[in-house]
Amino acid sequence: MKVSARNIFKGPISAIKTGIVNAEVAVSIGGNDSLVAVVTMESLNALELKTGKDVVALVKAPWVMLMSEGSDIRLSARNSLTGTVKSVEVGTVNAEVSISLPGGSEVASVVTKEAAAELGLRPGVPVTAVIKASNVILGVPA
Amino acid sequence: MKVSARNIFKGPISAIKTGIVNAEVAVSIGGNDSLVAVVTMESLNALELKTGKDVVALVKAPWVMLMSEGSDIRLSARNSLTGTVKSVEVGTVNAEVSISLPGGSEVASVVTKEAAAELGLRPGVPVTAVIKASNVILGVPA
Amino acid sequence: MKVSARNIFKGPISAIKTGIVNAEVAVSIGGNDSLVAVVTMESLNALELKTGKDVVALVKAPWVMLMSEGSDIRLSARNSLTGTVKSVEVGTVNAEVSISLPGGSEVASVVTKEAAAELGLRPGVPVTAVIKASNVILGVPA
Repeated sequence: MKVSARNIFKGPISAIKTGIVNAEVAVSIGGNDSLVAVVTMESLNALELKTGKDVVALVKAPWVMLMSEGSDIRLSARNSLTGTVKSVEVGTVNAEVSISLPGGSEVASVVTKEAAAELGLRPGVPVTAVIKASNVILGVPA
Repeated sequence: MKVSARNIFKGPISAIKTGIVNAEVAVSIGGNDSLVAVVTMESLNALELKTGKDVVALVKAPWVMLMSEGSDIRLSARNSLTGTVKSVEVGTVNAEVSISLPGGSEVASVVTKEAAAELGLRPGVPVTAVIKASNVILGVPA
Repeated sequence: MKVSARNIFKGPISAIKTGIVNAEVAVSIGGNDSLVAVVTMESLNALELKTGKDVVALVKAPWVMLMSEGSDIRLSARNSLTGTVKSVEVGTVNAEVSISLPGGSEVASVVTKEAAAELGLRPGVPVTAVIKASNVILGVPA
């Protein structure tokens, strides 16, 4: 498998909460970080997802919102991964930002050039990557 | 809080419709416009969302679809904000479009350069920003 | 209607599965391909969606993930459309990729420049477009 998604996290499922239509699946991605995905019950069953099973969690870079100085706000998005900026590549409209997490993994985000400037994103700056659980795609070996 | 999301709407919650897993939250964003967000019941409770409470509604610019001459179609997306193009910044692949809403707020969208050309987007042109309710992140003071 | 979404599929609804809050709607988009959309029951009723009814299915290009050599993985995302790369336009940060499907339609995706290079995307290369059902917007004539 090769995917365009810049974020490919690997790890075991740490928890599953099932509903009628959807399920919430938490994946341990290293360090103390975990990523929650919302998938349909149909996918949960088709992929035979179970606690302890190793999965990949895929997130496209434009689906990652960045936040700094976030101590004064609480968000409805389920995933907040705090780390430091590793690199910023600036284009005409967009910028791609790489973030190092304490556990060793990295998060990639595409934001507007303007946003990167406003948040003062440059290597070493602390930043939080916010990801909606519904924007995480899970995969298992075929 | 500083966020990369180009769309930060502030206003009071005007209505909440609860389900078993998800809730729909309508936020008044000025003028006669409102924005509907779908959040989990868990987030609704954790953020103590109630009618009348002031919240911020965050939407990344690539999550905003633009439409013109839309009078002949009805969409499944819950949010349609009609205004006029304020500015267009064109890159190699993408273009960032700012739209002024009648109520005074602005909406930012990133579309392909090709799309901006096809829709004839330039300052003063009427355009509708379409946003799926599941792509709206709500925030409250910590 | 003119929309910024680069993916506009037209076809009849082939199946509807209803839940309490959401419904899954499958649309035949030509060839043997179909696209599944998740919409709220409210939208299903408001748009009077029924099997056989012609609809448009809209997907923004940044919502399309690309995958190659995908035979070793199964994903939670409901839609996988396999075709061949038709063209790649590369910017500073992003690249826009057009994919021809066997049934004659095309899929557009915006990925990072880096992803396009890693996947070796160039005209003629086989590739799969992965689209989450929750990222498909349905439309009907007004």
